[in-house]
Amino acid sequence: MVPGHEVVGEVVEVGPEVSKHRVGDVVGVGVIVGCCRECRPCKANVEQYCNKRIWSYNDVYTDGQPTQGGFASTMVVDQKFVVPIPAGLAPEQAAPLLCAGVTVYSPLKHFGLTAPGLRGGILGLGGVGHMGVKVAKAMGHHVTVISSSSRKRAEAMDELGADAYLVSSDAEAMAAAADSLDYIIDTVPVHHPLEPYLALLRLDGKHVLLGVVGEPLSFVAPMVMLGRKAVTGSFIGSVDETAELLRFCVDKGLTSQIEVVKMGYVNEALERLERNDVRYRFVVDVVGSNIEEAAGAPAN
Amino acid sequence: MVPGHEVVGEVVEVGPEVSKHRVGDVVGVGVIVGCCRECRPCKANVEQYCNKRIWSYNDVYTDGQPTQGGFASTMVVDQKFVVPIPAGLAPEQAAPLLCAGVTVYSPLKHFGLTAPGLRGGILGLGGVGHMGVKVAKAMGHHVTVISSSSRKRAEAMDELGADAYLVSSDAEAMAAAADSLDYIIDTVPVHHPLEPYLALLRLDGKHVLLGVVGEPLSFVAPMVMLGRKAVTGSFIGSVDETAELLRFCVDKGLTSQIEVVKMGYVNEALERLERNDVRYRFVVDVVGSNIEEAAGAPAN
Repeated sequence: MVPGHEVVGEVVEVGPEVSKHRVGDVVGVGVIVGCCRECRPCKANVEQYCNKRIWSYNDVYTDGQPTQGGFASTMVVDQKFVVPIPAGLAPEQAAPLLCAGVTVYSPLKHFGLTAPGLRGGILGLGGVGHMGVKVAKAMGHHVTVISSSSRKRAEAMDELGADAYLVSSDAEAMAAAADSLDYIIDTVPVHHPLEPYLALLRLDGKHVLLGVVGEPLSFVAPMVMLGRKAVTGSFIGSVDETAELLRFCVDKGLTSQIEVVKMGYVNEALERLERNDVRYRFVVDVVGSNIEEAAGAPAN
Repeated sequence: MVPGHEVVGEVVEVGPEVSKHRVGDVVGVGVIVGCCRECRPCKANVEQYCNKRIWSYNDVYTDGQPTQGGFASTMVVDQKFVVPIPAGLAPEQAAPLLCAGVTVYSPLKHFGLTAPGLRGGILGLGGVGHMGVKVAKAMGHHVTVISSSSRKRAEAMDELGADAYLVSSDAEAMAAAADSLDYIIDTVPVHHPLEPYLALLRLDGKHVLLGVVGEPLSFVAPMVMLGRKAVTGSFIGSVDETAELLRFCVDKGLTSQIEVVKMGYVNEALERLERNDVRYRFVVDVVGSNIEEAAGAPAN
């Protein structure tokens, strides 16, 4: 498998029927490079929900060949899945928006959670969670980061600009925050109880699952009935929403927190990822790397 | 405890500040006779979600006295919680709309599920479920009744007019119905798995819990994420929604299926309720009963 999604690059060649992009454009590719174009999700331009979507890496393309991801000097992509990177957004800044960014932007937009003044919770502060804080703050929300320990308090409040920080094991603080949030963006990728967080939601509040958790999540029915709350979920975002997010980020001056590394560092980067040792995304500078050398190099 | 909700009667006396109703009006009272009037739900006119709501029976009123329900010759109720029964709706027909009816109408309205042509599922065919079929059909939906056995097929299809009937243990039929419903109204009051039903929902489908189940319900996150589905819930309905539903029923000629009994029959009726032996609601004709006699009468 060759990984690499959230790809940004320059258009070097276009086919005869390409109308959306021109040579020299700076463009991005997210996680999806194909879909059926005929199902309900495709017709509604939310191709991320197409059952025949094709991943940009570790998948099989329509020609039967494996998709190769973005850890490459060039990449061939259907124009439909290519978004323009607007002027004013650095390529390395745009990259994490193409998956992590749109993963939080899409549900906020879709569920009608964009109005200034809303109160949101971000559960889990990793690659997606940190974009959640930034996007929600840029929308003018009051943002509470909810975490299992107080370890990330300073980075949440001081570096990312969250308005409040809640430790989920602090029963008193959790009780004080009951019935206060319009939504919770739940980025936790391991099993966790839902009821403590459902209690934080107020009338019509939404708990949006973004983390793929294999073990069933559970709650008692009255926790959602009394308050008409919802446990829902969302999955990355569409090409249209991605383009919209990129413009939103330019408008709001929103930047992501990244660490740019060269290709020769990827093995070490992957090891650090496993230790959660990155704030918050590695961006690999492929063009600036000597790929041939890196391919043969041991992790250094 | 004196039970009795879904109360319909005639106004016999009004206080000096009553402006909404006049002596002689036929009116109804649902499950709620009090609320705080100051919280967010109250201010949004969804007083059923007020944490200080007062039940019309088996509760304590603002004066410290028990609320007595509707099994009575007269009842004193604040005008706010009294809805007019429109001309064209028989009192006994109106009664089951005041709780069972609005319990299904409210979520369909609130979640934007009223457009003709939608495809809905009604899970469980009891007092609330049968109103679900009727209300959804009156909205012009394609309605599938989902049940654990084929026992209720004829009544669902022939008597209530459902368009389809799905037995949840029929794996083949369930698979054929996958990805086909816009919503499921779940009236099942005992523990049940959610995943088989979530699989029936299509993009943006909503699973609306209406049954109070004490044991936690569970599902894996990808079941809602891939399709942006929601597990949500709803709790009876507001006075405003109830009034709206009553007008809707007159417009659509919608009637409920009831069995009218006298007060002397209530003990037998309660025993039959326990056996699920009612299609679908008992309505007690209090005025037409000799209450004094009934109160002393043994179950017959």
